[in-house]
Amino acid sequence: MTPSNENELTQAALQRLEGAADPRFAQVMRSLITHLHAFIREVDLQPGEWMAGIEFLTAVGQTCDDKRQEFILLSDTLGASMMVVMLDQLRAAVHASRAGETLRATETTEATVQGPYYWEGAPELALGADIAPGVRGEPAFYSGRVTDTRGQPLANALLDIWSGDGEGVYDMQVEGSSMAARARIRTDAEGRYWFWSIKPSYYPVPVDGPVGRMLAGIGCHPNRPGHIHMKVAADGHVALTTHLFVAGSPYIDSDVVFGVRPSLVVDFEAHPPGKAPDGRVIAQPYWSAHYDFHLQPEAA
Amino acid sequence: MTPSNENELTQAALQRLEGAADPRFAQVMRSLITHLHAFIREVDLQPGEWMAGIEFLTAVGQTCDDKRQEFILLSDTLGASMMVVMLDQLRAAVHASRAGETLRATETTEATVQGPYYWEGAPELALGADIAPGVRGEPAFYSGRVTDTRGQPLANALLDIWSGDGEGVYDMQVEGSSMAARARIRTDAEGRYWFWSIKPSYYPVPVDGPVGRMLAGIGCHPNRPGHIHMKVAADGHVALTTHLFVAGSPYIDSDVVFGVRPSLVVDFEAHPPGKAPDGRVIAQPYWSAHYDFHLQPEAA
Repeated sequence: MTPSNENELTQAALQRLEGAADPRFAQVMRSLITHLHAFIREVDLQPGEWMAGIEFLTAVGQTCDDKRQEFILLSDTLGASMMVVMLDQLRAAVHASRAGETLRATETTEATVQGPYYWEGAPELALGADIAPGVRGEPAFYSGRVTDTRGQPLANALLDIWSGDGEGVYDMQVEGSSMAARARIRTDAEGRYWFWSIKPSYYPVPVDGPVGRMLAGIGCHPNRPGHIHMKVAADGHVALTTHLFVAGSPYIDSDVVFGVRPSLVVDFEAHPPGKAPDGRVIAQPYWSAHYDFHLQPEAA
Repeated sequence: MTPSNENELTQAALQRLEGAADPRFAQVMRSLITHLHAFIREVDLQPGEWMAGIEFLTAVGQTCDDKRQEFILLSDTLGASMMVVMLDQLRAAVHASRAGETLRATETTEATVQGPYYWEGAPELALGADIAPGVRGEPAFYSGRVTDTRGQPLANALLDIWSGDGEGVYDMQVEGSSMAARARIRTDAEGRYWFWSIKPSYYPVPVDGPVGRMLAGIGCHPNRPGHIHMKVAADGHVALTTHLFVAGSPYIDSDVVFGVRPSLVVDFEAHPPGKAPDGRVIAQPYWSAHYDFHLQPEAA
């Protein structure tokens, strides 16, 4: 088929997918081509604009290396990553509901983006450990429980925790650095967890690449509010990737990657120096944050 | 605004464009984000599929170098480039019509993709020259006229011509090559042009990169039918970038980049050795192709 106008061109491109061996691949490509063509027509994309787009995407690819993933950053800043996260959690909730679980999606702790700074293999530390010794920032005591969506405590659940330092810099961003402010911790028999780290700061995503130029063009600041990352996993439950956000942090209402969810915003309580809830004596002012995670049972 | 569901996420991403200094940039981004989010929701894109997409786009960017533009190839094979070409010519026709020209778009020679093998600065040769001496392939005599859309001949119009050789290989694809099968030729006082080159062959686009893997996934062959490229320009007229396609070439009905338009398909007539229309005596069988180009006057 030789297309003689724009509608026929879209039809020809879709027709070509009929040879795809994998029906799911064909389905994804069908939707992609339909939206791509509709976008070009809707804005009446001009040849110079098309070329600027080609050059932008090429630069995004060429900015990626083993420490930097500019396409994930692009996806994050367009809200695409967060859309995938939301749909994934919704899908798990629907599965559970079909399996007969009387589950409301809101009962499960909400997920958010993983971001580019996860580092596999953080040290497994004892409950109550300081996971950020020597790291810049004000000390903070984190505690809470991991339960299922009915409130039953989950013993031996694994928390994989990471954050930047008190100035918003991650260990991975420092050339030749080793792991810092990262650990894996397991809950006790009552599903409780507690540990020490620092109170995380807001920070800008990298702006020296093409995504930084795009954000400047949009007129959008490049910052994320202060947050600490957690992956929470327990046998027989859907693993959760989320953050706890610092209530009142700058940019809490305008996270550049759309990661904030109201249910994940946590008050950090200020304390004078003295004896902390775990009995540790702290010589300087410190913060505390409390949060309970609720994991969804896996569908049978 | 902190989005608490998928609709609000799209709204938040669109709201962020309100700070854009350039209203056209905001318009393009608004449509892009709307379609990107709609695509993700429509196919319920799963995290593993999202990551495969990130890795694919990264590989496309990293396959580009000073001789290869894999993102243009991706755009071409998705029909996006041809959509931009079609809209551009339609826009020019609408402008002309608004300027009072009694123009039907079909009167203008149709445009097609430029492709990745244009090389600026081809030698300007005399009318009737052989632009492909020593190039593999069967000789072909090209002739015709350049006129405006009312049929008035355009003297001194410039044809910038290029093609692969008779086996479908472009000079640029050969390491360290110099220009071959390329020239610029000007029409005579009656708007006529004629020159010698070879009859071009079908060929595959590069398939050793990510776009080749995508085409394999779709189950689509990677070939373009035989064609010769022309840019045609004359003072006071809209410049045209197009091809002439060889009628009956393999893949004439399934060009991998959707470049074929029925009006650009030309019969190549076979001739025995002997005296050609320009008086040249040809010692081997040869082909001839005749085509008249019609350029649209620029809007006032």
